Amino acid sequence: MRSDLDRLMEENNLDAFIVAGGEEFNTVRYYLSNGAHITHGTIFKVRGKDALLVCNRMELEEAQKSGLRVATDVELGYYDIFAKAEGNAQKATALFWSKILSDEGLDKGRVGLYGTWQVNLTIALYDMLFEEVDEYDFVAETTPTLFDKAMLTKDADEIRRIKSVAERTSAVMQEAWDYISGLTADGDYLVNEDGEKVTIGDIKMLVRRELMARGLEDTGMIFAQGRDAGFPHSRGEADMPLQLGKSIVFDLFPRELGGGYHHDMTRTWCIGYAPVEVQAIYDTVMEAFDISVETYGLNKPTHLMQEAVLDYFESKGHPTTRSDPKTMEGYIHSLGHGVGIDIHERPSISHVRRDDVFEVGNAVTIEPGLYYPDRGMGVRVEDFFIVEESGELISITPFRKDLVIPIDGVTRSE
Amino acid sequence: MRSDLDRLMEENNLDAFIVAGGEEFNTVRYYLSNGAHITHGTIFKVRGKDALLVCNRMELEEAQKSGLRVATDVELGYYDIFAKAEGNAQKATALFWSKILSDEGLDKGRVGLYGTWQVNLTIALYDMLFEEVDEYDFVAETTPTLFDKAMLTKDADEIRRIKSVAERTSAVMQEAWDYISGLTADGDYLVNEDGEKVTIGDIKMLVRRELMARGLEDTGMIFAQGRDAGFPHSRGEADMPLQLGKSIVFDLFPRELGGGYHHDMTRTWCIGYAPVEVQAIYDTVMEAFDISVETYGLNKPTHLMQEAVLDYFESKGHPTTRSDPKTMEGYIHSLGHGVGIDIHERPSISHVRRDDVFEVGNAVTIEPGLYYPDRGMGVRVEDFFIVEESGELISITPFRKDLVIPIDGVTRSE
Repeated sequence: MRSDLDRLMEENNLDAFIVAGGEEFNTVRYYLSNGAHITHGTIFKVRGKDALLVCNRMELEEAQKSGLRVATDVELGYYDIFAKAEGNAQKATALFWSKILSDEGLDKGRVGLYGTWQVNLTIALYDMLFEEVDEYDFVAETTPTLFDKAMLTKDADEIRRIKSVAERTSAVMQEAWDYISGLTADGDYLVNEDGEKVTIGDIKMLVRRELMARGLEDTGMIFAQGRDAGFPHSRGEADMPLQLGKSIVFDLFPRELGGGYHHDMTRTWCIGYAPVEVQAIYDTVMEAFDISVETYGLNKPTHLMQEAVLDYFESKGHPTTRSDPKTMEGYIHSLGHGVGIDIHERPSISHVRRDDVFEVGNAVTIEPGLYYPDRGMGVRVEDFFIVEESGELISITPFRKDLVIPIDGVTRSE
Repeated sequence: MRSDLDRLMEENNLDAFIVAGGEEFNTVRYYLSNGAHITHGTIFKVRGKDALLVCNRMELEEAQKSGLRVATDVELGYYDIFAKAEGNAQKATALFWSKILSDEGLDKGRVGLYGTWQVNLTIALYDMLFEEVDEYDFVAETTPTLFDKAMLTKDADEIRRIKSVAERTSAVMQEAWDYISGLTADGDYLVNEDGEKVTIGDIKMLVRRELMARGLEDTGMIFAQGRDAGFPHSRGEADMPLQLGKSIVFDLFPRELGGGYHHDMTRTWCIGYAPVEVQAIYDTVMEAFDISVETYGLNKPTHLMQEAVLDYFESKGHPTTRSDPKTMEGYIHSLGHGVGIDIHERPSISHVRRDDVFEVGNAVTIEPGLYYPDRGMGVRVEDFFIVEESGELISITPFRKDLVIPIDGVTRSE
């Protein structure tokens, strides 16, 4: 967690780090600056010292909400350096960073670079740092980075926020369920009180409105029906009308409004009735879900959980990415992942990434699924779990796991 | 515009480009792929050929919405290369990219790198490309890049979308105006029909709801009152109650829901009445606004427009970043900027960036402002303009520019 940063910097052999970026949403900057709305801030931290946020003068007020030490580029002399660099912005920034590290008391050492930025600007600046600055070794970590490690476990305040998002997300899913269950069947379709066919776009709009009313924002929900449900990341077609008896994968992973912590959950629904084939893979996925939870153990490698699910799916005759790395159907993703400010964080519950273990403070999804696009169906069920202080794995996604949303007068089954 | 890409690649001496990135919103990827919701796609384009989008198998359905040629990493052999790279993801990616460029018919040459990504991953991959791939020179452009140049002018479809966002944004600003003008004064504050003080947070929530109802999303609006209005990028405090007679800077720059084209406009409001001091700088800013528009000329350097405004503000005794580069008050930003998928694009209307000229297809803001935080006020007025086929500069922001929102029974002035 955040309070481990100095220790992790030592573990990763870093004397300092710099978090850079432009106007893009910047996960690490958000993490360090309390979500302050800064679009031109750079954060400098020397190991053992408090972090310094250097901002544009226009953003001073926002920057001060970060709780960090704050200085403007004007007062630290950026414009003098820029003038000397003859208008070369990369050169000016390289020299400015070097000056700040030195002002912060670091004469030489290893400096990790993080943040989110344009690819070309990152490389151009990196080249310039190499050319202009001899005192420091600039380090580009790959996973697990310093921040992957820090974010692996959440502190009490982060967990409080995540749990609040979880409750609100479940409430929104309930609104969608209630709305659909109140619709009327008309042939294979569902119609509203005006007799109009209800589409996936209608449901998504309802969900976005209900999220916003609760201080949340959608970050690309999936509501995919039939063949689309057979592709794990197909978002669903807005114009497609809801249909009876199709598998619908509804994966909802909103975050706090304006950027912040996520909750991530998935349900698979069939409206009115479930075809036998969908019910069968649904039951298999639910069994895999239960096996996952039973396989959990504190300090146990996460890949063992994925392997238990792979064993089970393969025993039932489903292809997996372990049995056939190129398969396009069956079980074709990992079992789960950490969630926080980013929707995909560590730990991974995967058979490919084998270095994570379950720890107190993990906030992680479990989401087995089976996908058969050519048979017009897919199923995924996902809850969000916290590894509590006690070491227990606790679901914070209370929402029901029924497959069928009953519709008045529909009793058909295949 | 997009159709100029091959010509601009030649102009910038690029044989190919690659657009990389992860789950971050990726402006260039959006620009090239018709806004398809891809989180793991990489785009390759060799000059003179159509672009190729290489996606993860889970995203095949979404990727096909891009209108580009699409291939999955599975079918192009990524997993075979990954196995040979002994699990080193950077090495595997470097070799995979090299193979794709070769498959696309490019044996050697200059390859521009673009996109939005984590800083550390970008650098780690760049280092690996340098180490493992000899055939290509990988190029990191600085501004104006290939895409800065392409996005400098918008095509008919982009302008149609921007104009639609402009109309909807103005309608939302009207909703905010109407709501505020219907409030009741209670001492210095404004109360709703339940007698509760109305806050900035209430107004922002109303605005977000009205945006969403029109298929738009907020990207961090500014609604800053009093001293906060004196800092150009202060977002405003949600808990602050609306007050009579304070300058309020309301800068609204939403985009199409889920990412897309923006509109950008600002109004300054005083509720009930305008203090003499605010009215005075407001009149000065409006004069600067009119001078800007009068200074416009097709093919004329944009910096001349900023300089006309600097001359005027300085003649009225206001400090500027030209008269004092370190000033924290007066006129402390550039006059305008292009807007599109990003909120800040080329052309710049600045005295520092001097290489842009007004061209047909520019979509650009004009936004003079004056800021005096220590006197508790700031003023900015911003319209959004298109340089039409005729060469005329046309505002697409029809919303009224009144300073004062009248409140029943309030006639006071200072």
